[in-house]
Amino acid sequence: MLELRLVQGSLLKKVLEAIKDLVNDANFDCSSSGFSLQAMDSSHVALVALLLRSEGFEHYRCDRNMSMGMNLGNMSKMLKCAGNDDIITIKGDDGSDTVTFMFESPTQDKIADFEMKLMDIDSEHLGIPEAEYQAIVTMPSSEFARICKDLSSIGDTVVISVTKEGVKFSTRGDIGTANIVLRQNTTVDKACPEDATVIEMNEPVSLTFALRYMNSFTKATSLSNTVKISLSSELPVVVEYKIAEMGYVRFYLAPKIEEDEDENETKPKV
Amino acid sequence: MLELRLVQGSLLKKVLEAIKDLVNDANFDCSSSGFSLQAMDSSHVALVALLLRSEGFEHYRCDRNMSMGMNLGNMSKMLKCAGNDDIITIKGDDGSDTVTFMFESPTQDKIADFEMKLMDIDSEHLGIPEAEYQAIVTMPSSEFARICKDLSSIGDTVVISVTKEGVKFSTRGDIGTANIVLRQNTTVDKACPEDATVIEMNEPVSLTFALRYMNSFTKATSLSNTVKISLSSELPVVVEYKIAEMGYVRFYLAPKIEEDEDENETKPKV
Amino acid sequence: MLELRLVQGSLLKKVLEAIKDLVNDANFDCSSSGFSLQAMDSSHVALVALLLRSEGFEHYRCDRNMSMGMNLGNMSKMLKCAGNDDIITIKGDDGSDTVTFMFESPTQDKIADFEMKLMDIDSEHLGIPEAEYQAIVTMPSSEFARICKDLSSIGDTVVISVTKEGVKFSTRGDIGTANIVLRQNTTVDKACPEDATVIEMNEPVSLTFALRYMNSFTKATSLSNTVKISLSSELPVVVEYKIAEMGYVRFYLAPKIEEDEDENETKPKV
Repeated sequence: MLELRLVQGSLLKKVLEAIKDLVNDANFDCSSSGFSLQAMDSSHVALVALLLRSEGFEHYRCDRNMSMGMNLGNMSKMLKCAGNDDIITIKGDDGSDTVTFMFESPTQDKIADFEMKLMDIDSEHLGIPEAEYQAIVTMPSSEFARICKDLSSIGDTVVISVTKEGVKFSTRGDIGTANIVLRQNTTVDKACPEDATVIEMNEPVSLTFALRYMNSFTKATSLSNTVKISLSSELPVVVEYKIAEMGYVRFYLAPKIEEDEDENETKPKV
Repeated sequence: MLELRLVQGSLLKKVLEAIKDLVNDANFDCSSSGFSLQAMDSSHVALVALLLRSEGFEHYRCDRNMSMGMNLGNMSKMLKCAGNDDIITIKGDDGSDTVTFMFESPTQDKIADFEMKLMDIDSEHLGIPEAEYQAIVTMPSSEFARICKDLSSIGDTVVISVTKEGVKFSTRGDIGTANIVLRQNTTVDKACPEDATVIEMNEPVSLTFALRYMNSFTKATSLSNTVKISLSSELPVVVEYKIAEMGYVRFYLAPKIEEDEDENETKPKV
Repeated sequence: MLELRLVQGSLLKKVLEAIKDLVNDANFDCSSSGFSLQAMDSSHVALVALLLRSEGFEHYRCDRNMSMGMNLGNMSKMLKCAGNDDIITIKGDDGSDTVTFMFESPTQDKIADFEMKLMDIDSEHLGIPEAEYQAIVTMPSSEFARICKDLSSIGDTVVISVTKEGVKFSTRGDIGTANIVLRQNTTVDKACPEDATVIEMNEPVSLTFALRYMNSFTKATSLSNTVKISLSSELPVVVEYKIAEMGYVRFYLAPKIEEDEDENETKPKV
């Protein structure tokens, strides 16, 4: 039996908004340590990993490990029916083919039960090794979302280049080029540490990514005021949004092999 | 001759927004007692009744009974041109084929006259007898709108069940089921009586309705903070929104005969 | 070499929003006196004239007259990437086929360079003689925008009639007619002169214009709280929005020759 009571139910609503466009169907894994998910996006290019640790729930009962296959679109439809201040409880039974989401209003005057059919989903859990990164950029999540959106109006890919001084986001398209530089600014405003751009760097790095995926990842912006971007030449980038004190959503995306620039310019854009 | 001056013109704007999607063309009836309308929706399933009593107008002149056929879409286009603080005057002449809406800004610096062509519309006025209802639920209109909208994302019909303890709204669809229970809460917050859910019940009742129409009715939500839902097994439900001190919009809808549940589940959804 | 630094960069963003739907491609002319543009709309009916005087820039360097052909849609895409509080600098070099827009955030922590390809555009600069107008109406720009939008829901053209008492905007369509009268109200509210409607009149005038273009012009509403409309029977109307202390956007549109009214009514609307 499974019963997970989350007082700040809006967190679960935001998690679904963050990942439902990237992943159609996925298994949620429930163990004594927490509620988690790992899934490739539907084009098998990006990987999403979610963790909500058991300590973050007001009540957390999971008698034995369970994996529940859910359609994230349907799950999102149901969670949208929860009020932003509602307490959400996830309930499941061993061997049952449904999961129940219970929404309680803060005054307890409105109680809703939404029962959703589960699915059988094949999946293999990838082990993601801890790695050393050449550079880690922590910056305001809204600024990262703005930059990805802005660059998308010019080009299809973004080159992220990190030096000790700052991080540069560049793109190139038919109508021209764009370069946006954020300076490291840790000391600027101690009153508002979430506005800081902080760079931890072992060596300079410059990598190219598809903006389409980056824009998808920024759907998680409402989960956290900051985003952490970990970069290494040989590894997928990790774009991480912390979820309050209880976990994270992480997105992994392999860098593009940069094409020869001349070729890029002569190739017609389809 | 007809001259009706409504200081709070925004009420008439809201009335049109509430009914224009349900009813295309209708006769507005004007008598010494008030300005009213009764019309079936275009699929002849739901009935709308509007009353604005003469006492609610700053100036009300109606020399003899008049019936004016209007296209509500066109009338709404014109009323949208009135500012929210404007005074609206409706003017008509016996035998004229037009009606004039005059909009005066509060400062009187802007005066607009919109003249609309009238239509000949066949209609018969149905007598709606006063009835005793098995249960009457009064609840916040925004909560009712939210519930109808939320359930629409799961199913096509809503079962409304009333007991002494509360009112339950249920639906069922391809992706699962939903039950939302509101408890009677009259004593909770006397400072804000409009937030209360109040149940007057002679006997328990459980009726099924098409959510499409319920959602249409909730377009009247801006007219009133509360909605009154009157239910009886043998009668159409009445969903009533009071209009300030001067009248109401009432929607009538016959319950669906509940189909056998198994049949419901095997029938493919088109 | 060209380097124009505009502290209130949002002005340039608003200018582009105001004219980009009317004009596709245009030459921006830069001289020691200012940065300007004159262009016909794509259907060659309306004329746009923009002036930003050099004194309005914090730094203004223009070594010799330059004309830079730009696609306004692309330019708008780039300027949308500037924050509303950003300082915008326009940079160009003699003989270069690109222009650079630099955006600096107020804290200087974010610096963006957008480089756009220039185009060769044939254009001839029309001399627009200063003229005496029969009537000049100054009114709140938001009120003018509201009136043009409202009348568009009824008809296709607007008749603007000016007398000493006020200005009347009229239209006629399939569903009826509309007349909106604004009274001159200079003395009403001295605390808020931008709300005033002021009429300077040599003789009464009544002219007809296509509402489609008037609605296009009102995209400039955010540039100024007031709009100045100059009317004469023999001349195009001038609709002028002042840009802070530094210049203006002016739209010119020839009046329609009024058709015989009966013909108007029998002609089916396509």
